[in-house]
Amino acid sequence: MKKIVVIGGGTGNFAVLKGLKNYDVDLSAIVSMADDGGSTGILRDELGVLPPGDVRQCLVALSDSSRLMRSLINYRFENGGLGGHSFGNLLLSALEKVTGSFEKAVEETGKILNIKGKVIPVTTHQVRLKMILNNRRILEGESEIYLSKEIDQGYKSIYLEPYPKANPHALNEIANADLIVVGPGGLHTSLIPNLLVEGLVDGLRGSQAKKTFVVNLMNRKGQTTGFRVSHYLSEINRFVGEDIFDYILVNNQKPSQKLIDVYAEEGDLVENDLQDERVLLAPLLGELKEQQSVDFLKRNLIRHDPKKLAHELMKIVNHL
Amino acid sequence: MKKIVVIGGGTGNFAVLKGLKNYDVDLSAIVSMADDGGSTGILRDELGVLPPGDVRQCLVALSDSSRLMRSLINYRFENGGLGGHSFGNLLLSALEKVTGSFEKAVEETGKILNIKGKVIPVTTHQVRLKMILNNRRILEGESEIYLSKEIDQGYKSIYLEPYPKANPHALNEIANADLIVVGPGGLHTSLIPNLLVEGLVDGLRGSQAKKTFVVNLMNRKGQTTGFRVSHYLSEINRFVGEDIFDYILVNNQKPSQKLIDVYAEEGDLVENDLQDERVLLAPLLGELKEQQSVDFLKRNLIRHDPKKLAHELMKIVNHL
Repeated sequence: MKKIVVIGGGTGNFAVLKGLKNYDVDLSAIVSMADDGGSTGILRDELGVLPPGDVRQCLVALSDSSRLMRSLINYRFENGGLGGHSFGNLLLSALEKVTGSFEKAVEETGKILNIKGKVIPVTTHQVRLKMILNNRRILEGESEIYLSKEIDQGYKSIYLEPYPKANPHALNEIANADLIVVGPGGLHTSLIPNLLVEGLVDGLRGSQAKKTFVVNLMNRKGQTTGFRVSHYLSEINRFVGEDIFDYILVNNQKPSQKLIDVYAEEGDLVENDLQDERVLLAPLLGELKEQQSVDFLKRNLIRHDPKKLAHELMKIVNHL
Repeated sequence: MKKIVVIGGGTGNFAVLKGLKNYDVDLSAIVSMADDGGSTGILRDELGVLPPGDVRQCLVALSDSSRLMRSLINYRFENGGLGGHSFGNLLLSALEKVTGSFEKAVEETGKILNIKGKVIPVTTHQVRLKMILNNRRILEGESEIYLSKEIDQGYKSIYLEPYPKANPHALNEIANADLIVVGPGGLHTSLIPNLLVEGLVDGLRGSQAKKTFVVNLMNRKGQTTGFRVSHYLSEINRFVGEDIFDYILVNNQKPSQKLIDVYAEEGDLVENDLQDERVLLAPLLGELKEQQSVDFLKRNLIRHDPKKLAHELMKIVNHL
């Protein structure tokens, strides 16, 4: 069975994992540990736990349990001292406290959710993501970086503090992978934070796996405004130190002009500017259901379709 | 298989259920819904859910799952907005929100905990327990009644507000029971609140089941100070309207004087004053482990032993 390792965090991973879990592959998700916003941030501050949010999303993506169980894990309390906390975050944090290990907590939650595959934190150290902008302003924490509209003005550095060692289990997955998928996901908040962990880049460079970069559909205003595929690639490669990708998977399906207009305040469409045989163009857009157009956040209006993504990735796997 | 229905709430039920679950019987716990203290009270106030605390304890008592899972359910968050909440309470409340039904939440939690038997809320209506003392003071809520030291001065009435209908599933269990066990447990805060639900007393009186009253080991200072077995019995029967019990199970094992002294500020020993053939005397004390003498609350120092309790109750069952 082919081993696929997906690297990311946040909602970006979700579609890849959800799509691939229906195929007969050995699937692992390596997840960034930089999240410090919302419910996750409060739990980190108040309980001293590792960030559960991104891990939770990957667990749900890989879950084969009932709809009820998935709804429970994603349920957010609405009022009082619990307000804003997702139940899955509380489960992971309580399990971390009871077992004394975040990895064990992830494993046990995986059992409860009957997941296919594994979810592995990229590091098990407590870290904060920081960024020094060109104007010398320091952005403290992933959520501050996520909300900044100044990043496209350039930054001097981005780093994790303290500089953490990689989780050996993550390195092991990378070393034994047949295919490594990086992205989609927030460039500075989900993808790069994985590469900032000591040993991760060496692991990627040393792995015999084929490597695929799944490029985002949309830019994020003030962060990657006007980025084209080459910008995403060079930004990743800047941290890896060389161009490691064998395939670059790019969407070529244009959303309706109406959707692009609605999305405009969030960001613009990522256009392909690469004439490179590694670039695989495919229609990857998720279909918009009527109800979702009302319920969903704008930034979820244009998103990858799990089935289409998995279909293209499996074409690559089947040629390995 | 004989059907045993245990009526109570709080920690009192725990020993009975934990003991009986190891026997080949059809076991149900009917649980008071008056709890409004601590984590449970906050969840009721902030989320509008039904009280999870007593139900959680019964679920854990009946659980056949791993020690880890039971530790998780009993885990209490220590800091911040979550401080004081038990994870099991949050699970029940989140499931109530997701399913829209407290009973469904209890059922699903029972599956997660792999329980033997059933846990059934005595009512599924939101109620508050109230008590009017002889001095006309009104105690509002179970936790206020629990903490009062004036109850042994007498009270005019105790009632649930609003007056709730019994859960039909609870009535059904009672109607089909072979043995009904009432107690042990807080007289005014765990046992009587079940009897205050519309239809419950009629159900008890109409049921062909044999009925056993398990008398508390210790009185609670300011609440049942100086009560003997006959006082417990007459207090229960005052609400039932007739003497329904076929057996009255009373501990005859005296704790060490040292323990009685330590416990003195919590309450005194319940002495038997009944010369009644229904009274079954048996040694029912839990053994005190060295470690527990430090860790446990004083009121837990003298408590029923699940095995001894179940052994005596099964003698009754085997004679049915």
